[in-house]
Amino acid sequence: MLDQVKSFFMSLQDQICEQLSTLDGTEFEQDQWIREEGGGGRSRVIKNGNVFEQAGVNFSHVFGANMPASATAHRPELQGRSFNACGVSLVIHPHNPYIPTTHMNVRFFIAEKEGAEPVWWFGGGYDLTPFYPFEQDIKHWHQTAKDVCDQYGEAVYPKYKKWCDEYFYLKHRDETRGVGGLFYDDLNELGFEQCFEFTQKIGHSFCEAYVPIVNRCKNLEFGDRQRQFQLYRRGRYVEFNLVFDRGTLFGLQTGGRTESILMSMPPLARWEYQYTPEAGSEEAKLYDVLQPIDWL
Amino acid sequence: MLDQVKSFFMSLQDQICEQLSTLDGTEFEQDQWIREEGGGGRSRVIKNGNVFEQAGVNFSHVFGANMPASATAHRPELQGRSFNACGVSLVIHPHNPYIPTTHMNVRFFIAEKEGAEPVWWFGGGYDLTPFYPFEQDIKHWHQTAKDVCDQYGEAVYPKYKKWCDEYFYLKHRDETRGVGGLFYDDLNELGFEQCFEFTQKIGHSFCEAYVPIVNRCKNLEFGDRQRQFQLYRRGRYVEFNLVFDRGTLFGLQTGGRTESILMSMPPLARWEYQYTPEAGSEEAKLYDVLQPIDWL
Repeated sequence: MLDQVKSFFMSLQDQICEQLSTLDGTEFEQDQWIREEGGGGRSRVIKNGNVFEQAGVNFSHVFGANMPASATAHRPELQGRSFNACGVSLVIHPHNPYIPTTHMNVRFFIAEKEGAEPVWWFGGGYDLTPFYPFEQDIKHWHQTAKDVCDQYGEAVYPKYKKWCDEYFYLKHRDETRGVGGLFYDDLNELGFEQCFEFTQKIGHSFCEAYVPIVNRCKNLEFGDRQRQFQLYRRGRYVEFNLVFDRGTLFGLQTGGRTESILMSMPPLARWEYQYTPEAGSEEAKLYDVLQPIDWL
Repeated sequence: MLDQVKSFFMSLQDQICEQLSTLDGTEFEQDQWIREEGGGGRSRVIKNGNVFEQAGVNFSHVFGANMPASATAHRPELQGRSFNACGVSLVIHPHNPYIPTTHMNVRFFIAEKEGAEPVWWFGGGYDLTPFYPFEQDIKHWHQTAKDVCDQYGEAVYPKYKKWCDEYFYLKHRDETRGVGGLFYDDLNELGFEQCFEFTQKIGHSFCEAYVPIVNRCKNLEFGDRQRQFQLYRRGRYVEFNLVFDRGTLFGLQTGGRTESILMSMPPLARWEYQYTPEAGSEEAKLYDVLQPIDWL
């Protein structure tokens, strides 16, 4: 199972990088790294591209003798098992504030113990974080996600859409991180073949969901006002990733490669005490959508 | 006890703000706030001052029926007690990269339960985070701290200096946050009068430790290179506060006032994948001191 999934994840990384690279007109730089305790990865990044201020697309496969705390917090029965974890994770911070920031992740886990059946599961999803939300883009984003999910039953999209809204939620701000998308975890109930197929389709649909939005927004003119708002909102992205994100905590706890894990951090971000957008402004519109909304 | 300590903390906030305000030539703006579940505070900030890009000096007093998890993690016997917590907390982000960032906190806790003795303790300290470390400033900083501690025995400074190095440590970077100072917690073994007196002296010595450094460095000329390095290193400050800092987690968990808690965030910060300073450069010198060092 592991080899099969791993090889898919590596080719997914290739395919996504190729599409993003064409879109930006810049090649990704690659670092291959090895984790002392087991495993390693390939981190790929565009820094200061034409469209992307930063785009990081990482593949990693790590393994160890003991499941880390962040992975057993909600599954205590797996404590003490050995684990293999692999996945692809990407975060894109565009220059143009009219293009949303985005994140995608697909992952596979196996937890093993002598004399017991291996426990495996898939997880993943993608979510969109606009600064200036355009309804048509958000609808396209959710429709693409729904089209994949619908192949597995009509309950799938609502379930994973809701999970996404709940997961990407900043409690101390009472805001969702953005306009959501899909989030799933612990997926094994369909059997390996179907769970794997679903994850492949999610992975492949990411560019379908995101690239048209980039193309539509990348030539919209912006000024310092939009830039300052983007930098301010990127502060929320930092807050979510460092305070709440399980993937980040998992990475840091397992002695993952810090530079790869924190590639999700924006190249520049700002905080401003007591900032609130002017009522009725373009910026205020964002705050209206930072809550669970049925977009379709 | 509580009234006495609270009234000292409020006057300490006044005194520190007065000194910083004179130094900067800018008045603090104040917000008074009330916490629904009990308590409130006064947050004071200079935004974009002459010397300080941001200086936040907060007083707060919060109480509730149940000790929050972050405060009982290392003292499980206090779970379920009601609590009162008050303190002064400040973080200063200067414009000039030659002036260090700094943080100071003094706090008092009482945990109570019917039919049992109240449990109280003081905590606090201050630490210095230079971008370009000057030995004379760091020595002055530690000497000021030591002079206070030495009045309580020669074991005090080494103990709290070490605690500071251990507390302000970024595990995923294998770096201390800066060049340290003092950190103490759970202080009650000297009896209330002496513990309170020690905390008063710590509070009063902060400006003595920091103001001369600001005065010495504030007119040093800097350019974009120093500014970029400052912004990059401020990223580490964000990482520490959001991933490790107990005070921040305590605040967010207790439904504290988010804008006051996150006043510690820098006004602007950047991240750069795989940045390392050139060997032998001024920037590389910082990395030599981000470890426990006996400065005196």
